[in-house]
Amino acid sequence: MVSIGIDLGGTNIKLALVDRDKGFITKKSVPTEADRGKVHIFDRIASEVKAIIKEENAEPVGLGMGLPGMVTLDRRTVKNPPNLPGWKIENVADEIESRLGLNAVIDNDANLAALGSARFGVGKDINDFIMITLGTGVGGGIIYDNKVYRGTTGSAGELGHVIINYHGPHSNSNTRGGIEAYLGQRFLSRYAADRIRQHTDNPLYEKFHTDFEKLEPVDLSRAADDGNELAVDILKSSGEKLGYAIVNYIHILDIRKIVVSGGVAKAGHWILDPAKETAEKFLMPPFLEDFDIIYESLGNEAALLGAASLAFEALS
Amino acid sequence: MVSIGIDLGGTNIKLALVDRDKGFITKKSVPTEADRGKVHIFDRIASEVKAIIKEENAEPVGLGMGLPGMVTLDRRTVKNPPNLPGWKIENVADEIESRLGLNAVIDNDANLAALGSARFGVGKDINDFIMITLGTGVGGGIIYDNKVYRGTTGSAGELGHVIINYHGPHSNSNTRGGIEAYLGQRFLSRYAADRIRQHTDNPLYEKFHTDFEKLEPVDLSRAADDGNELAVDILKSSGEKLGYAIVNYIHILDIRKIVVSGGVAKAGHWILDPAKETAEKFLMPPFLEDFDIIYESLGNEAALLGAASLAFEALS
Repeated sequence: MVSIGIDLGGTNIKLALVDRDKGFITKKSVPTEADRGKVHIFDRIASEVKAIIKEENAEPVGLGMGLPGMVTLDRRTVKNPPNLPGWKIENVADEIESRLGLNAVIDNDANLAALGSARFGVGKDINDFIMITLGTGVGGGIIYDNKVYRGTTGSAGELGHVIINYHGPHSNSNTRGGIEAYLGQRFLSRYAADRIRQHTDNPLYEKFHTDFEKLEPVDLSRAADDGNELAVDILKSSGEKLGYAIVNYIHILDIRKIVVSGGVAKAGHWILDPAKETAEKFLMPPFLEDFDIIYESLGNEAALLGAASLAFEALS
Repeated sequence: MVSIGIDLGGTNIKLALVDRDKGFITKKSVPTEADRGKVHIFDRIASEVKAIIKEENAEPVGLGMGLPGMVTLDRRTVKNPPNLPGWKIENVADEIESRLGLNAVIDNDANLAALGSARFGVGKDINDFIMITLGTGVGGGIIYDNKVYRGTTGSAGELGHVIINYHGPHSNSNTRGGIEAYLGQRFLSRYAADRIRQHTDNPLYEKFHTDFEKLEPVDLSRAADDGNELAVDILKSSGEKLGYAIVNYIHILDIRKIVVSGGVAKAGHWILDPAKETAEKFLMPPFLEDFDIIYESLGNEAALLGAASLAFEALS
C-alpha cells in the first residue's frame, strides 16, 4: 500500500511517495514561493503529485499533508498558518481533492512528526510518547495508545508555550516563560550571544562578535566538544529549562518517554543530559520508572513520513 | 442499577449506596482510625458495607473505592498512599473481594472526583474537562472523551506539581514552584500570615496574630467580602498562580473547560476571577474559544459518587 505525503513549510514543499512497510519510494523538495499566494501553492502541489504518480505508476490510497498552524478536528481545514502569508481559514483538503481527484487529509506538522516517529522512527516500539521538536520554534506532538492525542479541537501539544517561569521571557506568543523563549533557535542564540559578549577572550567571541546572528546551536555544541566551558554552561542552562518543561508534561500526561527532534536537538547530549538530570531531580519519584529522553534521527523526514502515515490511517 | 461507593481518606471513610440514575440512596461516614492499621480498616469497611446492603436489601453490581495515592493501571493496587500510615503496595481490591464476595475496583480519589462530576455534577454535559481539587493538597483528574484519562500507568493529572516557576517554593514533593506550593491550604495560609504580619492594623491581624494556624482560606474570602483590601490582594495573587497553571494544562491537553472543587475553591470568585483573567492573558488566542472555569458544588461527595460510578463502568 502506498500514499502521498507532503510537508508544506514556509520555505519548501517536501513531497514523497511512501510504502507503508518499506518507507520512502521517492521524495522531492521544491521551493514554496509563498509570496506567490495560495493558488500557486495548490497548483504546484497538484502538478508535482501528478508527476510522481505518473513516474512511479503508483496508485496511492490518498494524500496526507502536514503544515504549520492549527488544524480543525476533521483534519481538512487550517487556521491562520504562520509562515504562509495571505492564508486565513483554508479548506486545504478540498483544494487538493478538487485538483487531484485523490482523497486528502491534513494535520499540524508537529503532530505528524510524532506520528512519523511512531510508524517509522524510534517511536515504533513505544505505545505512548511525547515528541518535542526543538527548531526555529518549539513544538510538540503526543502519541497516546499508539495514536495522536488531539484534545478537544485538535490543538493539543503546544509544548513550547508551557510556562516554566511566569516571570520569564516572552517568545512568539502571548505566553511568557515557555521553553520556546529559552530554546527556540533565535532565543537560544540571543542568550548565547549575551553570555559570550561578557567573555571577549573566548574563541566563540572571536569567531562571532562581528555578527552574532550567525551563531547556531551546532556552533555551541562543537565548541563544547572542543572543551569550551562557556559553551558547555550555555547549553547546560538551556537544557535545564527543557528539564523543567518535561516535568510538567509528565506530571500532567503520565507519559514517560520523551522523543526529541529538530535542529537544536542536534546540540545533543550537551542539552539533553542536563535536561534529563533536571527532570530526574524534580519529577515525583513514581514517575522516574521508565522515564527516558530519546533522540529521533529522522529529522525533517519525520513529518513527511507522518503525513503519508496519516493517509494510510485516515483514508485507506 | 446500584453500586457501593467508598472514599477512603486519612480521617474518615465515607460509604454510600448509589443508584446510577438517581444518585445517593444512603450514605455514611465513619472515622478511619488509620493508626489501628490496614487490617482494621478493611474489616471496618466490610462490616459497614454488609450493614448497608442488609438494611437496604440491595444487590450492588460491585464496589468502587477512591483513595489517595497512585493506583495501578488494573485499578486493584495502591502504592504508598499518603495519610495511611503503614500502607505500602496493597492489593485493596483483593482485600475487599475476599471479605465481601463483591467485585471491587479502586482509583485515585482525584480521578474519581472528576468522574463523579462527569456523571453527577457540573461535568455531566461536558465531554472533556480538567478537574482541579484545591484542598489540603492540590490534585486533579482529566476527563477526555467522557472517560478518565489515565496515562501510561494510571497516574496522570498530578496538577498540583506542575511547575509555574522553577525558582518557586517547595511543597510536599520534590517538585518546586507547583501550584500546590502556592494554593495548598497550608501554603496559602502561611503566605497569608506572612502578608498579614506586615499590617498590624488590619482586622485579620487582630483576629489571627496569636495563632495564624487557625487562618483558613474562607476567612480570607469573608474578609474580602467585607471590603478588606489586603485579603482581596492575597487571594488575587494566589488566583493568578492558578491561572498560570491552567495555561499549562490547556496548552498541553487542549481541554478548555476547567472544573474546580475543594475547600480552597470555596474562597470562590476572589480566587477564580483572577485565575481566569490571568489565563486569558497568557493563553494563545485560539485556546480562548470555549475556555471557562466552573465551580463544582458536589464538594467531597464528587469522589464518593465517582467511586460508585467506577463500579458501574468497570464491573457491571
